[in-house]
Formats: sequence, C-alpha cells, structure tokens
Amino acid sequence: MMLEKYGHGGDLLTAQQSFGLPGDQFIDFSSNMNPFGPPAAVERLVAEYAKELIRYPDPGVRKLRAKLASVYRIPEESILVGNGAAECIDLAVRVLRPQMTGLARPCFSEYEEAIEKTGGRVYDLPLDPENGFELRKQDLLNAVDCCDTLFLGHPNNPTGRLLSKETLAILSDCGRNVILDEAFVDFVPAEEEVSLIARAPEAESLIVIRSMTKFYAVPGIRLGFAVAHPRIVEAMSRLQIPWSVNSLAQRIGEAVLDDLEYAAGTKAWLQDERAWLSSELTRLGMTVYSSDTNFVLFSIPDRFGQNVKQLQASMGAQGILIRDASLFPGLNEKYCRIAVRLREDNEALIAGLNNALNGHSRNR
Amino acid sequence: MMLEKYGHGGDLLTAQQSFGLPGDQFIDFSSNMNPFGPPAAVERLVAEYAKELIRYPDPGVRKLRAKLASVYRIPEESILVGNGAAECIDLAVRVLRPQMTGLARPCFSEYEEAIEKTGGRVYDLPLDPENGFELRKQDLLNAVDCCDTLFLGHPNNPTGRLLSKETLAILSDCGRNVILDEAFVDFVPAEEEVSLIARAPEAESLIVIRSMTKFYAVPGIRLGFAVAHPRIVEAMSRLQIPWSVNSLAQRIGEAVLDDLEYAAGTKAWLQDERAWLSSELTRLGMTVYSSDTNFVLFSIPDRFGQNVKQLQASMGAQGILIRDASLFPGLNEKYCRIAVRLREDNEALIAGLNNALNGHSRNR
Repeated sequence: MMLEKYGHGGDLLTAQQSFGLPGDQFIDFSSNMNPFGPPAAVERLVAEYAKELIRYPDPGVRKLRAKLASVYRIPEESILVGNGAAECIDLAVRVLRPQMTGLARPCFSEYEEAIEKTGGRVYDLPLDPENGFELRKQDLLNAVDCCDTLFLGHPNNPTGRLLSKETLAILSDCGRNVILDEAFVDFVPAEEEVSLIARAPEAESLIVIRSMTKFYAVPGIRLGFAVAHPRIVEAMSRLQIPWSVNSLAQRIGEAVLDDLEYAAGTKAWLQDERAWLSSELTRLGMTVYSSDTNFVLFSIPDRFGQNVKQLQASMGAQGILIRDASLFPGLNEKYCRIAVRLREDNEALIAGLNNALNGHSRNR
Repeated sequence: MMLEKYGHGGDLLTAQQSFGLPGDQFIDFSSNMNPFGPPAAVERLVAEYAKELIRYPDPGVRKLRAKLASVYRIPEESILVGNGAAECIDLAVRVLRPQMTGLARPCFSEYEEAIEKTGGRVYDLPLDPENGFELRKQDLLNAVDCCDTLFLGHPNNPTGRLLSKETLAILSDCGRNVILDEAFVDFVPAEEEVSLIARAPEAESLIVIRSMTKFYAVPGIRLGFAVAHPRIVEAMSRLQIPWSVNSLAQRIGEAVLDDLEYAAGTKAWLQDERAWLSSELTRLGMTVYSSDTNFVLFSIPDRFGQNVKQLQASMGAQGILIRDASLFPGLNEKYCRIAVRLREDNEALIAGLNNALNGHSRNR
C-alpha cells in the first residue's frame, strides 16, 4: 500500500482502495489546501457553467490575465496562465533547458521530474534539519558557481520555509536563471513584501510560478500562472498547447481575486491555527519544524518505534490521510507532512496520532 | 480584423471585439461543435461540481480510462487521457520526435505547430480540390518513401473527408509511424467500421487521437484521449504534466459515454442536415465539397467578387461567425468552412450569405 502512488498527496481514489472507506469520508491532511473551501463566488459560477462549457475557452486567457495584471500591478505580457502551476513548471524548464539545476532538497518532486524530461542534471543543495531546513549561504554560493539555473520553493515544500532575505539578495545578483515556485506564498501574511512577483517582469532571468488552487481551494479545476520577462513568457507560450486553461478555471480565477476578505481572513486564521497545531504535535512528542505556510513538517522520534509508513497506515484506517514525507529525497522514513486544516479536523488529527503512536486503538 | 487571431475558430472574445456584439449573441459556424449541446447528464454533473473541485483530480484518470476501455473494447494501458485532443497531439509528436512528417494539406494547423516545436520537418502531400480533396495514392507512396511519420486527419479538417480504405491499408503496412487524428470520426455513422482505434493497441507504430469535446459539445472543459501500444502510452504519460485532466472533464467524460441515444441521434440527424445545408449552399452558387463529418468546406466562385475575409466581415456584422479557411496552407482566399448547426441556425446562415453575396443588406 502506498498512498502516493502517483508521487503526490491528495489521491483519494488510492486512499479508498487502500483503506476501504469512500473517498469523501477521509479527512485529508496529505494535500495542502485552504480548508475554508473556495470563496463564495465559486459555487455560483460553477452552477452557471453548464451554459458556458459549450464554447471554447479564450485561447489568450485575456480577461484573467488583465485581472492578474491589475491585482499584482504587473504588465499582462509578463503573465502566462497555465493548466495548474504544474504546467508552468514544465514550460519554465522546457524554455530555459538548464544543463545543471540547483535544487534545495527536500523539495517538490515536480522540479526534478521536469528537469529529467529535458535531459538536464540536478545539483543538490542539501537542507539540514539541524538548521531548521534553512538554505545555507555557502551551499548556495557553491551552487551559483556550478549551476546555470536554480529552482527553489519560496516557501519550500515540504519544509514550509521561506527563503531568507540574504538568499533572495544572492539570487538577484547571481547572474543565473532562477525559477521561484511561490505556490504557497499567498498564505504568508507578508506576501507582498516577500514575493518576487513584482520583480520578475523586468528581470532577465527570473521566472516566478504561482498557484491559484491551493490558496483558493480549487485544485480540481487546475489553475496557476507564471510571471517573467515578456520574452520568456512569449517563449513559454509558444510551447503551450492551445486552450490549455479550461474556461471554468479562467472564470473562477477572475472571480476569486476579488474576494479580499477571504484572502485576509485566511492569512490571519492560519497564524493562530498553525501555532496551535504545532504546539499540539510537540506535546505529542513529535519534532516539529517551523513553517511559514499552510503545512507543517514533523519527524517521529525513534522512541515511538514507528516509521511514517506505519503511521500513515494506522491513520488511514482511522479515516485520516497524512503525507509520507520520506518520499522526498533528502528525508528519511521518520518524516511526515500535514496540512493545517480547521480546528475540528486538527483535533481529530491529534487524537488519531495519539491513538496510532501510543497504541490506544488501531481502528475506529 | 482577423477572427482567427489565435489560429482557430470559435474565438467569441475576438468576435465581440471585432463586431461589437456580446459574445453570446453570435451564431457560431466557425467552430465545429455538436449543435445539440451536451448530453443531459452534463448539466446535473456541473451543478454538483462545486463540492468536488476542492479535491485534486485523479492523476491516473482511472475511472474514465476504465470506461473508455470498456466502451471501445481496448486495454486501459493503451489509453492516455489528455487536456483536450490538443495535448494528445503535442505528446504524440514529442514522443515520436519525427524527422520528416507527411501532412496532407490543407489540414489542422496544430499538426505542424507540434512538429515545429520538436524541430522536425514537414513533407507536403497536397490535396487537390479537382479531386474532391482526396489523398492521391501516388502522393501517399511518395510520402512513405521519404517520411518517417505520417500525421493525417480521419476525417480531415477542414476538408471533412475520411481516408479511403486503400489509404488505410497502405498506412497499415508502410512501416512508418502513423498519427491519425480521429477528432471528428464520432460524427460518422460507420464510425466503428472506419475508425482505427481498435487496431492501435497492438500496432507498434500507430497513435489514434480522439476528442470528446466536439461530439459531446463540451470544448470549454477540455477532454481528449489517445490510443496506442502501451509502450507508446507509457512514454506519452511520462511527458504529461501531473493532473493535466481536470476533475470536471473526467466526470463529464465518464457520464457522456453512457448516453447512447444522444450518440445515435446525432449521427442520424447529421446525415440529413448536412445534405440540406450542402444543397442550399450549392443553390446559392457556392462550390461545395463533399464531407463525411459535421462541417462543410466550400469555395466562393470568382463571379461574386468577394473573398472569404470580406465575407467573414459582412457575416460577422450580421452576428454570424464563419471560418476563414484561407488560413489553412493549401487553400486560397476563396475558401470558407462552416459547421453544420440546427436547422434554424442553418437557415440564418443561408439568409446571411445571400445578403452578403448578393448585396441585399450588409447590416441587420
């Protein structure tokens, strides 16, 4: 049994086949979604969509690009909307065709997948738990010396850490191509201050990738975008298939950006809830790593005599899905990643972990 | 003004910008969609979708592939579902990486786009209006001699013609890679007899591409699939981005395949309606080419003193969109392509053409 059959969390069909519950009865901590569900406008839009799906999507994604340009105060020609951030990652790598790419591992597996497809090689910048998984300056400088490209998460997945100001400054001046995956930066209260999105349109060698499906909780419909110099966006666009972004995704993207209350509420809620969840995990005896976003990495101390696969199985049997983080190169079988969900679910997680780790009851 | 700003028909936003009517007020003959709209199940599915879009799509598209396997009696491992047929075209070419590809032109522009992206070259098999745009045997044999791959529409777009049995027999035995775009074959009453879909899983060098968005009238949501030997499907799948097929497309795909009445009704209706429309176009003085599917190519005789761009403009001003077929390499500015729509729309088209060509009234 392996929940991450396709390399990622959130796979409810595999969960159902593994644990015998209907897919919608799991509490899913294995994918990192905003637990509030989508902004209110989305339900209405979806209800009206049957009238619209009989027409082709706008191949130029013109309305959504104009909206993003206005919200982020960047030029439309610097925005490419994609079939999820996953497509933006793929296109960014295919356009840059890096020979040697520095990856700070553990990191999201799709960076390496995309690099492999183009025949590029990977240079490892190991992140160290002793150091709270923060990228070390000397490792970064070494990577700048021998890589043509750096591909980094900001914040990084699965560690949840933002890059430091010092790291960002080195990246700005290093003369290498930089791909920055900001898929989870919208959860950071200081988003505007830490994001490099406003800098990308004028940089010659920076591609910033954003997701709209995590923060707005619409992963089913696929929506992400990339921001870069118009020349890079043009090259990515030439490789993109026509109508790659379906029309419902375009409409939802246009609508959710207006819900400023939803955005502010999510950011504020997350600070408190993540603090609560982290302290509960610590109280259970877990080694919890500091996170800047909506998921938390922890490790299971040896004294519990359980690895994450065993833990995932006993949690699954309780109807709770957690992410086996040992599948990220650079982490071992003690590591687990969980999304921050609403309080009731988080309480169920803590109770479930308590059962699983302290042997109270293996099944519910 | 150019309706095909992005290289295709069905672009209502450009139509709106060009002709000043709201996008939903055009009668659109420029894209080839089933005019009955989607099967009944689709509206209900869409209405329920808001609950589902908060979860990731199944990355393996398992239920829909199982359904397709059962409907077409082919193995699941031979099926790759894509983000529209457009993604299947892109992946097929990227996997085969042809050096020299034979294209029977005029044909769908995405074949050449995909080939250009991989740096391949194109060998022209010219289709001749004198011959009803049928592929000539000698041209095909020449192409087999000098190409490693043939990429053909079956039926072909914009001509609407199926490949002949003789052509299919030559393709089967030629020892070249063959990509067959069957995006419009579901409209053919003898679909099962003419389609090569059942042969693809065991052929070593045949990829059949199908669309589900034309026949089922759901182009907004993007859905297509490719059928080939499991080895080829596996290679295409490795290049595909994760979660490429959104969850609504997957659910719609599963549902529409059950509506056998819709399918039979569409096929039966089309035979009569296309005959009526073709005869009306002929009566107007157009040179109409024989079609096997749901669109018709015609040319405007010189005596009308109008080319297709002028015709498109005066039809657009009447709220009717037609496809400028001069944009297909191999056709000149006399050619126009129209979808077969329901009778009332088709009557409006004929009346509009009559106005435009005979100068009764240029505006409504």
